[in-house]
Amino acid sequence: MRLRHKPWAREKIEAHPQYVILQPEEQKGRWKEAFQNDHPIYIEVGTGKGQFVTEMAKAHPDVNFIGIEVYESVMVTALDRLIEAELPNLKLLNVDAENLTDYFEKGEVSRVYLNFSDPWPKKRHAKRRLTYKTFLKRYEDIMPASGEIHFKTDNQGLFEFSLMSFSEYGMLLKFVSLDLHNSDFEGNIMTEYEEKFSAKGQRIYRAEAAFRS
Amino acid sequence: MRLRHKPWAREKIEAHPQYVILQPEEQKGRWKEAFQNDHPIYIEVGTGKGQFVTEMAKAHPDVNFIGIEVYESVMVTALDRLIEAELPNLKLLNVDAENLTDYFEKGEVSRVYLNFSDPWPKKRHAKRRLTYKTFLKRYEDIMPASGEIHFKTDNQGLFEFSLMSFSEYGMLLKFVSLDLHNSDFEGNIMTEYEEKFSAKGQRIYRAEAAFRS
Ligand SMILES: C[S@@+](CC[C@H](N)C(=O)[O-])C[C@H]1O[C@@H](n2cnc3c(N)ncnc32)[C@H](O)[C@@H]1O
Ligand SMILES: C[S@@+](CC[C@H](N)C(=O)[O-])C[C@H]1O[C@@H](n2cnc3c(N)ncnc32)[C@H](O)[C@@H]1O
Repeated sequence: MRLRHKPWAREKIEAHPQYVILQPEEQKGRWKEAFQNDHPIYIEVGTGKGQFVTEMAKAHPDVNFIGIEVYESVMVTALDRLIEAELPNLKLLNVDAENLTDYFEKGEVSRVYLNFSDPWPKKRHAKRRLTYKTFLKRYEDIMPASGEIHFKTDNQGLFEFSLMSFSEYGMLLKFVSLDLHNSDFEGNIMTEYEEKFSAKGQRIYRAEAAFRS
Repeated sequence: MRLRHKPWAREKIEAHPQYVILQPEEQKGRWKEAFQNDHPIYIEVGTGKGQFVTEMAKAHPDVNFIGIEVYESVMVTALDRLIEAELPNLKLLNVDAENLTDYFEKGEVSRVYLNFSDPWPKKRHAKRRLTYKTFLKRYEDIMPASGEIHFKTDNQGLFEFSLMSFSEYGMLLKFVSLDLHNSDFEGNIMTEYEEKFSAKGQRIYRAEAAFRS
């Protein structure tokens, strides 16, 4: 993700506390209050500019969504979308997924979406991949037993790695598509990266993996 | 696999009892005797015309191989190769993999190869796929704990199904390649189908899955 310096981004984020959770540690164990209902909470880790999570929130009003993005200069675009769409069931979180357990209680998140996560192709960077075992542990620690990860990518190496990583962790592969856009999967919502890569003729890979209790 | 009627096939097979095991039930628990050594035994289920298993046997003289093929009219070509190559570490078995446990004791087989297995794309035929759970049970029943299945195919649907089937069965995915011929996997030996499909530009998929004890 190319980063442009946006000095006004922080300011804009702080001006919208109804959309961006500014003290997320204080929300831990109290996310139902933030949404003022009991609906399940799905998070997207590495939301980028927010097209997926915004469209998901529109399509599924009975689910609460949280888009998590570490770069404020990127997240500010997701915020613009959210200001425009005025969705009560979507919040944004400008944090690093390394620290997920600081923000969520065990069981508080019902599903994790990972879309077009940075591939970190070099072996020595494997630990940074969002499907590396230390990240899987974090997702497990905030979901109930049999919580699921829904993962899409165009990156062959990352997909191969992730299938093995899910398996090694003991997770169950509930769904695998090696060419999502030519499959009978219904209700797909495209991300920015997905539109870009599929327009170039790249295949899109998708998997659903569940923790086993 | 197009079948030509070959009335002489049976006769030819019976004329080569040193290569084709004619009473395989009697071999159960005694395969070491057939090979006259203690080397590990790897089987290929659905050997077809035998190119893979013959070349593997040449490349790995310290492993004993058994090629299993249900159609005698197909297996006879594998037999021709074996007569030509005179390999002491390769035998053929003209049986249906449904009945593997009639021919092998628990632990007698160290690895199972599946190459370009018939895809049986219709859902109602799923049970016939050689990676369906009832077949996985048979492989498990003849291998030691953590025995492995090494699987190659060009068929996307069969590969997706197989990854899920291995996972559902509780197996560990130790290796996944979504484009074997453009990967850094070394020592690949091509099958007849692999040569045909990769010449047409089809990707070859490959996985290794181990039973967990
Ligand atoms: C390649 S982009 C994909 C964006 C979007 N999901 C899509 O599919 O269009 C990956 C995004 O994940 C974010 N990201 C990477 N690691 C992260 C982490 N540890 N915590 C939060 N966000 C992260 C990056 O900043 C980037 O915006
Ligand atoms: C599509 S061919 C592939 C042959 C070879 N492995 C290759 O890659 O070139 C599949 C073969 O598996 C055999 N086969 C299918 N089901 C079988 C079974 N249950 N037991 C033994 N052989 C079987 C078929 O007869 C056929 O020869």
